[in-house]
Amino acid sequence: MADSVLVLGAGLVGSSLGLALTRAGYDVMLWDIASSHALVAASLGAGRVSDEETDDPDIVVVATPPDVIPGLVAEVLGKFPGAVITDVGSVKAPILEAIDRLAPEHRRYVGSHPMAGSQFTGPLTASGDLFRDRTWVVTPEPGNSPEDIAVIERLARDVGARVVTMPASEHDEAVAQVSHLPHLMSILTASHLRDVPQGNLRLAGQGIRDVTRIAGSDPGLWRQILTSNVAAVRHELLAVAQDLAQLIDSLEDPEALEKFLGMGQAGALSLVGKHGQEPLDMLDVTVEIPDEPRALSRLFADIGDAGFNVEDFELTHDPVREVGYLSIAVERDVAEKLRASIVEGGWHAWAAHRGSRK
Amino acid sequence: MADSVLVLGAGLVGSSLGLALTRAGYDVMLWDIASSHALVAASLGAGRVSDEETDDPDIVVVATPPDVIPGLVAEVLGKFPGAVITDVGSVKAPILEAIDRLAPEHRRYVGSHPMAGSQFTGPLTASGDLFRDRTWVVTPEPGNSPEDIAVIERLARDVGARVVTMPASEHDEAVAQVSHLPHLMSILTASHLRDVPQGNLRLAGQGIRDVTRIAGSDPGLWRQILTSNVAAVRHELLAVAQDLAQLIDSLEDPEALEKFLGMGQAGALSLVGKHGQEPLDMLDVTVEIPDEPRALSRLFADIGDAGFNVEDFELTHDPVREVGYLSIAVERDVAEKLRASIVEGGWHAWAAHRGSRK
Repeated sequence: MADSVLVLGAGLVGSSLGLALTRAGYDVMLWDIASSHALVAASLGAGRVSDEETDDPDIVVVATPPDVIPGLVAEVLGKFPGAVITDVGSVKAPILEAIDRLAPEHRRYVGSHPMAGSQFTGPLTASGDLFRDRTWVVTPEPGNSPEDIAVIERLARDVGARVVTMPASEHDEAVAQVSHLPHLMSILTASHLRDVPQGNLRLAGQGIRDVTRIAGSDPGLWRQILTSNVAAVRHELLAVAQDLAQLIDSLEDPEALEKFLGMGQAGALSLVGKHGQEPLDMLDVTVEIPDEPRALSRLFADIGDAGFNVEDFELTHDPVREVGYLSIAVERDVAEKLRASIVEGGWHAWAAHRGSRK
Repeated sequence: MADSVLVLGAGLVGSSLGLALTRAGYDVMLWDIASSHALVAASLGAGRVSDEETDDPDIVVVATPPDVIPGLVAEVLGKFPGAVITDVGSVKAPILEAIDRLAPEHRRYVGSHPMAGSQFTGPLTASGDLFRDRTWVVTPEPGNSPEDIAVIERLARDVGARVVTMPASEHDEAVAQVSHLPHLMSILTASHLRDVPQGNLRLAGQGIRDVTRIAGSDPGLWRQILTSNVAAVRHELLAVAQDLAQLIDSLEDPEALEKFLGMGQAGALSLVGKHGQEPLDMLDVTVEIPDEPRALSRLFADIGDAGFNVEDFELTHDPVREVGYLSIAVERDVAEKLRASIVEGGWHAWAAHRGSRK
């Protein structure tokens, strides 16, 4: 028989989890302090509304705001003595400490944190694909049994996530860097709009929309997240304050400014292809482009027909020889195949490490 | 006969403009200092490679990096005495001042700035839809004739953009606020990743990717943009530095922190629906949801079947009456229609100003 899962909290994350687990064959029960939320989630296909009298789940996922997670974990540890318990809280060490105080015997609690969400809240914005290809961090502690850890890791993989395992303290430092700091940078950018005349907002393009998207998130939820990770968040903010002072100084020095912009570009590129994966090993396949437009259209068609996934490309020009070079960034294991198929079409092409572009 | 347009610079913006203008029926000629770029753009359907001997365009669009715009504008003012000239530079006043020095007789130059682009460069990333529904700022000066201004405004509208007209100096202040500052916030966030251990990057989710996307842009281009708008950019950065100091202080004060997060949320929401449009006049249509799941599924179906574009919604819960409320944000002119169609289905529903949600 399929595992049964009780999801506590039918907000965006809990409802999305219900949808994904139901699809994966789990028997899902839903509960929310606002019963209409559980009702909406159930009506969307995320499971059935929990019956507190008869429910006896194999797994409990606490998907509520962080403030109430420890209390609920302690409660279900007592109520379901056979269940493995996890939560989806964004900061792990303080939750663990609080559970320690409330329920010293908590071997069946395995902390976790799916790195997925959106600026929206509530069951109506749920999606069964929310966790697909996202990182789901599992933060076991020495007391956990390998079997219980495996149950939570399997649940995460069953909804399409990539599991990363690390200690709670390490997780909290990492999220300060890659989640909490970016969130506050988005907040600073968006809150600055209070000083911008309405008419000027007509000039807002996609860039500022992207930068400020996550600032639209629920302030109450983020207050809870940030105040439970204050030391790490302050450390990151102080470093950025130093950078900002340096950036302001560099406005008078174009060379220094460009260097700073280059650091930003390098940082942005360091995230490309990294949805919980190790850095990709990329090569450039470079093709010489002679002065003949019809041939070039053929090259584009060739590359597309061969079914290659071109992630990044660059066109450079040799002013002396009057030829151009098209460099296509691809993963190492397909570079030779791409090069061969291009050479077959009569082109000059070679593969090389990125950065060695002509 | 269709207007003929010479586009100088076959990068992302120039090539995209060539694609869009060709589609709109213009006769497009392309030139680039790197002839292979013009060749690639032409082969993608953005026009034909310019023939310097015979070209005699009605309109010239200078779509090069800002540093070389004034020189090219001065050159084509002399070369094509019948043409209306514009450019796509991101900062207008310094370009105008430079043109003033190089070609004091420049009535036929009408500055403009399409608020469109991406972190990519070069003709291979061009799209004929780049300008669709984006703002295209036209910055006329007293010397321009109404006819010449109309030519540029029509060109912008013909590629799907929304025209906003304002003086150059006002434009430059506005872009410092809604484009240059967000760009630097993205740069600060991305450059901060240099201090983040590789392993922690596995936890990066969509949020940091959105915040850092525009940081991937060309540092050389942005050096030119920012150094030509230093005073306005510094003004914005200093204000953010103050906010950042205040944010760091507020980490110890949850109330103050939540207030700050709320200012960010308000700022992010102030951009919603504003792609060069006036702020939308939105109403909430609120529906009472009784304790009956099948009826709720029917409500979702009803709303969808009625063909309404639901932009934002919120579910709230009345713990006393044990009912939920679904609030759907819609534009004023469809609110009554939506309410009526929901009421027809047997629901209790009413329309009200946003913010007055139950």
